[in-house]
Amino acid sequence: MSNSYGTLFKISTFGESHGPAVGVVIDGCPAGLDIDEAFIQSELDRRKPGQSKITTQRKEDDVFKILSGVFDGKATGAPIAIVIENQDQRSKDYNHLENTFRPSHADYTYQEKYGIRDHRGGGRSSARETVARVAAGAIAKTLLQEYGVDITAYVSQVGDLKAPDYSELDLSKTEDNIVRCPDSATAEKMIALIDQVRLERDTIGGVVTCVIKNSPLGLGEPVFDKLHAELGKAMLSINAVKGFEYGSGFAGVALRGSQHNDEFINAGGKVRTKTNHSGGVQGGISNGEDIYFRVAFKPVATIMQDQNSVDKEGKEVVVTGKGRHDPCVVPRAVPIVEAMAALVMADFTLRNKVSKI
Amino acid sequence: MSNSYGTLFKISTFGESHGPAVGVVIDGCPAGLDIDEAFIQSELDRRKPGQSKITTQRKEDDVFKILSGVFDGKATGAPIAIVIENQDQRSKDYNHLENTFRPSHADYTYQEKYGIRDHRGGGRSSARETVARVAAGAIAKTLLQEYGVDITAYVSQVGDLKAPDYSELDLSKTEDNIVRCPDSATAEKMIALIDQVRLERDTIGGVVTCVIKNSPLGLGEPVFDKLHAELGKAMLSINAVKGFEYGSGFAGVALRGSQHNDEFINAGGKVRTKTNHSGGVQGGISNGEDIYFRVAFKPVATIMQDQNSVDKEGKEVVVTGKGRHDPCVVPRAVPIVEAMAALVMADFTLRNKVSKI
Amino acid sequence: MSNSYGTLFKISTFGESHGPAVGVVIDGCPAGLDIDEAFIQSELDRRKPGQSKITTQRKEDDVFKILSGVFDGKATGAPIAIVIENQDQRSKDYNHLENTFRPSHADYTYQEKYGIRDHRGGGRSSARETVARVAAGAIAKTLLQEYGVDITAYVSQVGDLKAPDYSELDLSKTEDNIVRCPDSATAEKMIALIDQVRLERDTIGGVVTCVIKNSPLGLGEPVFDKLHAELGKAMLSINAVKGFEYGSGFAGVALRGSQHNDEFINAGGKVRTKTNHSGGVQGGISNGEDIYFRVAFKPVATIMQDQNSVDKEGKEVVVTGKGRHDPCVVPRAVPIVEAMAALVMADFTLRNKVSKI
Amino acid sequence: MSNSYGTLFKISTFGESHGPAVGVVIDGCPAGLDIDEAFIQSELDRRKPGQSKITTQRKEDDVFKILSGVFDGKATGAPIAIVIENQDQRSKDYNHLENTFRPSHADYTYQEKYGIRDHRGGGRSSARETVARVAAGAIAKTLLQEYGVDITAYVSQVGDLKAPDYSELDLSKTEDNIVRCPDSATAEKMIALIDQVRLERDTIGGVVTCVIKNSPLGLGEPVFDKLHAELGKAMLSINAVKGFEYGSGFAGVALRGSQHNDEFINAGGKVRTKTNHSGGVQGGISNGEDIYFRVAFKPVATIMQDQNSVDKEGKEVVVTGKGRHDPCVVPRAVPIVEAMAALVMADFTLRNKVSKI
Repeated sequence: MSNSYGTLFKISTFGESHGPAVGVVIDGCPAGLDIDEAFIQSELDRRKPGQSKITTQRKEDDVFKILSGVFDGKATGAPIAIVIENQDQRSKDYNHLENTFRPSHADYTYQEKYGIRDHRGGGRSSARETVARVAAGAIAKTLLQEYGVDITAYVSQVGDLKAPDYSELDLSKTEDNIVRCPDSATAEKMIALIDQVRLERDTIGGVVTCVIKNSPLGLGEPVFDKLHAELGKAMLSINAVKGFEYGSGFAGVALRGSQHNDEFINAGGKVRTKTNHSGGVQGGISNGEDIYFRVAFKPVATIMQDQNSVDKEGKEVVVTGKGRHDPCVVPRAVPIVEAMAALVMADFTLRNKVSKI
Repeated sequence: MSNSYGTLFKISTFGESHGPAVGVVIDGCPAGLDIDEAFIQSELDRRKPGQSKITTQRKEDDVFKILSGVFDGKATGAPIAIVIENQDQRSKDYNHLENTFRPSHADYTYQEKYGIRDHRGGGRSSARETVARVAAGAIAKTLLQEYGVDITAYVSQVGDLKAPDYSELDLSKTEDNIVRCPDSATAEKMIALIDQVRLERDTIGGVVTCVIKNSPLGLGEPVFDKLHAELGKAMLSINAVKGFEYGSGFAGVALRGSQHNDEFINAGGKVRTKTNHSGGVQGGISNGEDIYFRVAFKPVATIMQDQNSVDKEGKEVVVTGKGRHDPCVVPRAVPIVEAMAALVMADFTLRNKVSKI
Repeated sequence: MSNSYGTLFKISTFGESHGPAVGVVIDGCPAGLDIDEAFIQSELDRRKPGQSKITTQRKEDDVFKILSGVFDGKATGAPIAIVIENQDQRSKDYNHLENTFRPSHADYTYQEKYGIRDHRGGGRSSARETVARVAAGAIAKTLLQEYGVDITAYVSQVGDLKAPDYSELDLSKTEDNIVRCPDSATAEKMIALIDQVRLERDTIGGVVTCVIKNSPLGLGEPVFDKLHAELGKAMLSINAVKGFEYGSGFAGVALRGSQHNDEFINAGGKVRTKTNHSGGVQGGISNGEDIYFRVAFKPVATIMQDQNSVDKEGKEVVVTGKGRHDPCVVPRAVPIVEAMAALVMADFTLRNKVSKI
Repeated sequence: MSNSYGTLFKISTFGESHGPAVGVVIDGCPAGLDIDEAFIQSELDRRKPGQSKITTQRKEDDVFKILSGVFDGKATGAPIAIVIENQDQRSKDYNHLENTFRPSHADYTYQEKYGIRDHRGGGRSSARETVARVAAGAIAKTLLQEYGVDITAYVSQVGDLKAPDYSELDLSKTEDNIVRCPDSATAEKMIALIDQVRLERDTIGGVVTCVIKNSPLGLGEPVFDKLHAELGKAMLSINAVKGFEYGSGFAGVALRGSQHNDEFINAGGKVRTKTNHSGGVQGGISNGEDIYFRVAFKPVATIMQDQNSVDKEGKEVVVTGKGRHDPCVVPRAVPIVEAMAALVMADFTLRNKVSKI
């Protein structure tokens, strides 16, 4: 397994869905950073289950405890360990799954790879692990505030329903509704669609768009750790993600070079680009323009319907839909996308400090 | 900079477009592997410039030399260093660009990040670096042959022209035409389109699809180094790539869970899935089904037209189109995509050897 | 900071002397390994303070809790997080040191490096951190038992008092006395010396020797991660260590090659060496003979005497000896040396699985 | 294998004793650093064989070529690849060793670990590899000059002959004699001893002492990558090294804490220590005092005498002394020790840039 991420601002997460706790150790947070516990809690609250009618009804308060690395409210340079205890662990909901492989879950692959599997709620493969990422991401965001970096994600698509391009939206309105789409008209339709899907005991996918403003110039470490490559990996490591594109993305394929190229201009003494098909990244390095990217989430695999499958012995069985799950994962994925983006940006900010003499 | 990739099968590339040589050091190739020099050369030949009328006319024979790590035709466990000298280095083609930032190139960001820049042909940011990846990828492919793994990429889209789904294609026909699309009817249209774009002194984007058959079960290291996350990073690290999706990808967003889930079945004693929206990866681990993914390439930034830009002093200038470049990068990107996929798969194959007692 | 160690069997420790808890996350323990909680506790008990009259009187029960990675008594492949709460945290013992730099402690360097310092008991620089290493080391030892590897350390020197060479000792007697020297005559003198030093309110140094029997052939990864180089780093990372030598060590310098070389012999069909000046390692790789090395520990810096020093403002001050500390660190260092040796050996055991095809 | 060293200033070496070339790739050299080719050559010349009557008569000019990463005499931030071709490769000297294991060499362990072995001159296990380290070390030294750091090693012991303590020596005299001991009286005796040993067709060991002056405060990354732990690993990774100690080292073991502790004093407004048993490192972090350490080298394993051994089939054989080798390795080890120290210090200098906000 590989449960660490980052080079200089490095996190290691641990914990299973139905074990005693989930947590994270951050190694490399610069000493002297103010650690704002209220902000960490507010980020966890954005991710927590049970927030609204369109999220899972599992209840977790997600109260965290810092075990190390902070003294007098500041990071000391020592590793910061944060633990979130699991509370609502209705493990018996999963007894019927001990020997059964749920379709499009990680049950089968974990069993084959490791020869043993904590089947309760998906164990380590559960999206419960992302609570640790959000806690670490809150600290990364705090570090990025020192540089003025601003990261905002929002729901840009649910099923076939799409919000307008980010440039036409007021991103400060993202938290105004439960689906986290800043366009209220689209948001309303999205909520209705998710609710309908939920009543049908089904699930649906969506897209989260993330915009990073005020990025410093020079972030990203080619030729392998390009800024967008690392953002891509970070996003694809989130549960249920199936695709990543930045800037013009897949649509850019159909353009001509003469349409796609971003002309440089002198904007009041500052080098800027006239357009931004590059998505703020050129040659794997931030150019100071908005960084924006889109992350595709598949429909949640747990549905409240009977499904055919096989068990450990290869016998064909029917998996019945039980437990409490999100009909659509994207509203709660918004803070997770932001957290991972913050971790990538914080890491590159530190790495960039040694680029030149 | 970060010029290494991989954990156990690890490569480090070096070299600039117009310096003396480009090369790669492979650290971690298992001892005893047969090193087939003819195969390495054949892979380099698939990538080399000047192959056909739709690729750049720059001439490089791309003859490689192994400096270490091979004895009596076998890997010894020592690092394998491979060097490819640069031959056709018409550096003076680039004199006019010494102080100018070409639109949508890495000129500006390299200058800002490093304070110094080898402007000749893009220097380190040039796609010339990928020749080193292809050499290393050839050895990774050889290692994967020990496990029966088969990796094939092809051009699935140029501009708006799309080939049918991979399941309807005979992938053995990929090398039958110069655009590397196994569907001959589509290939013909693609070639015509690229040729037309070339005559217009413009460029166009495309998509490369990659299919990995016979992957062993169990490859991938959650929660961060998921198989598809690492494939995504590897692909996004290739020059001009703007997006990555695997399995159902962005299109899967619009499906319901009940449509998207891949039922497990018992196929003659073997656990298989009835459909494969998962793209051969569940929970970040290969499940034995075909792994397939799509990689979006933007139109090449170098066009044979005048473009507005600025120079180092911020003065507005016109960049004239000179030099020799590909009107569309995807035909030559096919072996690069395969090489990076092979490197990821080889690395995970080794890493998986320590998963269990 | 760098709080992780190991490549495939990787640990990350966290926690300060007087914070809420100390802990460790193990990432890379092979799935299926039996986790023996009683054994972990017994190892922690060998390290814990307050064991005898010659160790510190600080009381810590060092009760641990596993938060993740273990299911039904077996490692699942997920990260194993272990937490040990700090109980006897008499922080006020350290109030007088908030602004003062204790001689030969890390107070000054931490203050300068990080600009902030948890002064209570040395914070992160305290040897309290080693409790986490011992917990992880217990699991590494369990893994090594699968290969028959046997690691035993003992006290071979206190001040000028030296035990005979390890080949003349019965290492099974190490735990028979409180100083952990298997030679009872020397042990008695060592205990008397430490007790005398304690009464003088002073401290004294010592040497721990470690012997690894039944090492598999082939462990170690040249040219940088040689087996002895990694053992050296691991030992030197333990608090108060000043030197490391293996095999003939510093004494071997005075020998001629003709005396020092270890002739190969055929011992009943097995290649062995007649002598073992190599210390079981040749070219950085284990050769199957006993691996043995010596680790020098300086006298503990905390003494119960007045000492001259300076404070944060550079003012000259007198540091008075307070708190509870070991007069000699080596008896309690024995399980720490074993733990670090086990971590190195476990890691190389896994890494060696990918050396050959 | 593991052929990379360093975290931010990272080197990867490659090449065998009798292959086409040996080389190194440096990834992470800050852009803008002046690359002084004459200085690199002068460092290689200090290490090269055939310098004097007390070194091996193998002739290698050790001419290097930079393949990448340097433009207009400055590092560009791209990886710097340096290649040194092997010239005097009298491989046939080794034909008789193809199936034989030389005593106290790496022949047997390489054969067992990798199942295949380049037997010519020790292949990858040869000290020839260190030429790559010295080339990289020259660039690390150049970087350190920006900080005023000064690294000097010298021969402090050959056999039983010891030079006085470094504080009594004028280190600028190290290069005044062929044995590289700054005390001319001791140097003369050392040279005579080595010459005598050579005539006896034997070899002898020695100690290299290294002193680092003007180190910045704050280098070192506890708890695992302590400055002295990393120096120890770096030294122990050099061929033939058997021990490492810093500051008071093994001798410090016999002192009392009250003798060993280094009192802090205010020296004209600067915090200094009155003594320096700490060797310039406290808690794993440099405190601004001189860093000094000693490295023990065993007698060279290749002797010009017959020795008993076994071959690949386990048959007992006699190995005859052939080839050209150093009777004592320490004079040529001096620049290697300096190079590795420079690499460690350069890396920590960069790492320290992100310690605080």
